[in-house]
Amino acid sequence: MSDVQNQVMKGSFKLSRVGVRNVKKPVMVRRPGKDVTLIVTFDLFVDLPAELKGSHMSRNLEVLSRVIDETVRKQVSGLEDLGAMICQELLLRHEYAKYSEVRMSADYFLERSLGNGTSSLESYTLKASASSIKGGPTKKCIGVEVIGMTACPCAMEEVRKIRGVSKDDTNASITHNQRNVTSVSLEVPMDTQLEADKLIKIVESCLSSPTYEILKRADEAQVVISAHANPKFVEDVVRDVLGKILEEFKNLPDDVHVKAKSESFESIHKHNAYAERDTTLGELRA
Amino acid sequence: MSDVQNQVMKGSFKLSRVGVRNVKKPVMVRRPGKDVTLIVTFDLFVDLPAELKGSHMSRNLEVLSRVIDETVRKQVSGLEDLGAMICQELLLRHEYAKYSEVRMSADYFLERSLGNGTSSLESYTLKASASSIKGGPTKKCIGVEVIGMTACPCAMEEVRKIRGVSKDDTNASITHNQRNVTSVSLEVPMDTQLEADKLIKIVESCLSSPTYEILKRADEAQVVISAHANPKFVEDVVRDVLGKILEEFKNLPDDVHVKAKSESFESIHKHNAYAERDTTLGELRA
Amino acid sequence: MSDVQNQVMKGSFKLSRVGVRNVKKPVMVRRPGKDVTLIVTFDLFVDLPAELKGSHMSRNLEVLSRVIDETVRKQVSGLEDLGAMICQELLLRHEYAKYSEVRMSADYFLERSLGNGTSSLESYTLKASASSIKGGPTKKCIGVEVIGMTACPCAMEEVRKIRGVSKDDTNASITHNQRNVTSVSLEVPMDTQLEADKLIKIVESCLSSPTYEILKRADEAQVVISAHANPKFVEDVVRDVLGKILEEFKNLPDDVHVKAKSESFESIHKHNAYAERDTTLGELRA
Amino acid sequence: MSDVQNQVMKGSFKLSRVGVRNVKKPVMVRRPGKDVTLIVTFDLFVDLPAELKGSHMSRNLEVLSRVIDETVRKQVSGLEDLGAMICQELLLRHEYAKYSEVRMSADYFLERSLGNGTSSLESYTLKASASSIKGGPTKKCIGVEVIGMTACPCAMEEVRKIRGVSKDDTNASITHNQRNVTSVSLEVPMDTQLEADKLIKIVESCLSSPTYEILKRADEAQVVISAHANPKFVEDVVRDVLGKILEEFKNLPDDVHVKAKSESFESIHKHNAYAERDTTLGELRA
Repeated sequence: MSDVQNQVMKGSFKLSRVGVRNVKKPVMVRRPGKDVTLIVTFDLFVDLPAELKGSHMSRNLEVLSRVIDETVRKQVSGLEDLGAMICQELLLRHEYAKYSEVRMSADYFLERSLGNGTSSLESYTLKASASSIKGGPTKKCIGVEVIGMTACPCAMEEVRKIRGVSKDDTNASITHNQRNVTSVSLEVPMDTQLEADKLIKIVESCLSSPTYEILKRADEAQVVISAHANPKFVEDVVRDVLGKILEEFKNLPDDVHVKAKSESFESIHKHNAYAERDTTLGELRA
Repeated sequence: MSDVQNQVMKGSFKLSRVGVRNVKKPVMVRRPGKDVTLIVTFDLFVDLPAELKGSHMSRNLEVLSRVIDETVRKQVSGLEDLGAMICQELLLRHEYAKYSEVRMSADYFLERSLGNGTSSLESYTLKASASSIKGGPTKKCIGVEVIGMTACPCAMEEVRKIRGVSKDDTNASITHNQRNVTSVSLEVPMDTQLEADKLIKIVESCLSSPTYEILKRADEAQVVISAHANPKFVEDVVRDVLGKILEEFKNLPDDVHVKAKSESFESIHKHNAYAERDTTLGELRA
Repeated sequence: MSDVQNQVMKGSFKLSRVGVRNVKKPVMVRRPGKDVTLIVTFDLFVDLPAELKGSHMSRNLEVLSRVIDETVRKQVSGLEDLGAMICQELLLRHEYAKYSEVRMSADYFLERSLGNGTSSLESYTLKASASSIKGGPTKKCIGVEVIGMTACPCAMEEVRKIRGVSKDDTNASITHNQRNVTSVSLEVPMDTQLEADKLIKIVESCLSSPTYEILKRADEAQVVISAHANPKFVEDVVRDVLGKILEEFKNLPDDVHVKAKSESFESIHKHNAYAERDTTLGELRA
Repeated sequence: MSDVQNQVMKGSFKLSRVGVRNVKKPVMVRRPGKDVTLIVTFDLFVDLPAELKGSHMSRNLEVLSRVIDETVRKQVSGLEDLGAMICQELLLRHEYAKYSEVRMSADYFLERSLGNGTSSLESYTLKASASSIKGGPTKKCIGVEVIGMTACPCAMEEVRKIRGVSKDDTNASITHNQRNVTSVSLEVPMDTQLEADKLIKIVESCLSSPTYEILKRADEAQVVISAHANPKFVEDVVRDVLGKILEEFKNLPDDVHVKAKSESFESIHKHNAYAERDTTLGELRA
């Protein structure tokens, strides 16, 4: 049977990524101690050789649907593993493709407590991806996006100078603080299991303070005091995340890709402050 | 000439608003002491009687284009006046319509200084609208959206209690502060000229502090100190804006509609704090 | 115990809505034949009297958390019912408030089939709200947002004229078609159960065609042929939705509020075409 | 004078990009035959060595402000040139940095006509960037984002088969068509002048049809007929753009980076179809 997509092209160009974007599906994943429903937004791509007119777009949706259905029987422990399964299946169904790629994003929730009895369900974003080369390796990447708080060390120091307050004064000086979004992602080998919850914990420990949906008045004061005892530039946040990643994942190989970024919605400016590092564990260890 | 839109309908329903959304056009307006190019996003609507199948959508774009062209000769002093001109023209071109409405939004810039010699161009959003009733009045509405800073009075008080600091201590206590977006809009009679720059000034004076794109270290400290000397809930911001509107526009009639809202991107939470009042000058004066 | 929020104000203004926006929580609701996890974004507000300085924001989060926890035991059948429960609880906890309001939004999925054996899980958006007056009624509102397809009747007719094709020719003429988003919401009495799935079915039946995530080539042709046999302006879509709502909900009282709107992302323009009607069942029946 | 940012770090990590995001400024650029005001959103970054605690964020804003002020005297012909000037200045002011980068985005307008006397001002997006290496080259990149229309060749063919219409029938068959956004950007040497208007013209010529804000009924039919005579997959659009870039810019060197992407907001699906190629002119010429 002939079809338009299979027309042979002459003198044309190969394409790096052809596929579909913004497909939403509910997915059940096995998280530590529980099964969780995630509402996942997917982008799916394969490459296209120069001699073929079109990619069979509907196959992307069929693969997605089938692999998600399988997860009812064959539990997946994370989005990145689901992505890897989809990538391998995409290469089987698009017989002309040498490369496949899947990107995923989903809201995610964890219980958090200030240690005073009150706890609340906090929201995070999971960002995972996977890619596969025909006859070659499949890679998977798991990342988290965490909303937290930064308090500026520079303005704190300047206010101290103006007020003549010593750095030894235990009552930290006032400064500007603000909402911050920090992300970290790691590209790991297929046989490595890396827990998103652990990445979230690392990021939260590197901010001036985590944030909480439910805070009674005394809790508010405690968060404010903690944040001011722990002032951070976006530069500090990214570096601390990188340092803790190195410590936590000593066994991961040098070629693991890591990307960390932090953006503060500055309370004293209309613009955002931003820092990022895009590197490998090997380079960080050097 | 027959066309699909003019088909007569039986037993159908009238429609409240039919038109086009998200049309972008550059517009030149005469601002205090200067001519300014605004990149404006327009929505344009008329109503549609039950007996007509369709509105002539292209007339909206023709009216928009013609009225904007006219502004080259016939200068307009504000978006709301441009909107009023468009509304009246929409009713002429859509002979079946009894109501027309235009909504507009544009980035806007004003020079701001901390009073230390440094100044910077700060960005704001103008939000204007107009509506017209056939054989009746045309109304115009001008609003501004201002990014600023709020510092929380409650957390400040709680930290004071914990630390045993007296309220008389002139060194304000630490608290959480954050980016805030506050808007105010007024619907005024056609013959009233109301300056957007004045509304921006009012909003900025009601926040814990305005924000600035360029702040040297000493300036940062000054903004932080000012904001902490002036802690505000979103509730305070909205009420202060309403109070200053009453003061500033004593001559405006009671039926002028006013809407003020304030949203803080809480640094200690993942959600936003919000307050609004939707009312008339008459109700505020009561 | 004194606190900042409870400070008594003199000569101040009451506020229409004070609360929190953009709170995300997973919620389990009982849908026809199944329990479904929804990831819901909430806005929660109460009013604030003139004499109180601040609303107790954290109570909104506590109420939300507690009511959602209760749904594990006391199943809710829809977001609007959850909203009504939250509204009533908000009035109990904010003893100073006379009004409470909740707005909710969530992705939602339904199985759809073209009738050829293939089926796919399609995504929709649920938009619900509720409001409560102290000592008065609680109202609830349920709405849906549906992505579908419209084909333009006007351009179709114009092409026919140019090509001299009769309207009796069963092969519909070419026209521009495009992605469309249509919404409808109804505010119903507390004791009325109104199924969101039914609203989605109504909207899908009023578009030129529903859309599908998985379409094999023959299916694509079938959808294209159906849409062209059924050309619709946004005006037609809104009116047809209103007509079917009247038919389907004969038993609902006249004062039920209904809002329908349709927006087409025109393929031949950079702007969108839009129609809406905001009314009551009584007015539609007149 | 000591400050927090200048603190010396031990055992820390260098950072790839540190700076500010989402700064808005009006900029005057000299376009062919006219001076145009653009409202530009800027991101500005430099790298940061491992031994320094913080980047001096305010210098980014000072540099931006000064370079924009200079353009009043020293006219710039494009955003990419402005970006290059800023990058070089950033390296001078951040004496510790070895790399600087600027990204810019702005609405842009061009007059378009269908050739029937009617013309309208169409909106586009300019996307430019620049980067500079200390003691090394400065690169600049200019790109455009164009909204247009694609008509699907595959569904057209399938409908023909079902209806038994020959491919020789000059009346093209019905198919799904939709709004499409296509982008192309080129990274060129500093001494090359590359006109954004030319890139927009190339992209518009590669879509099934450009789109227009003002179309009278007969014009609508003409656009629909043109688009159906010229059906295109997103794959076709990207390849045609690449082919025309090669033709148009024969003199540009092999190492010029080119990225083209096309996304169709499918009228028959809820998801988007997407194709991209990220390559060099040399690879395309091979």
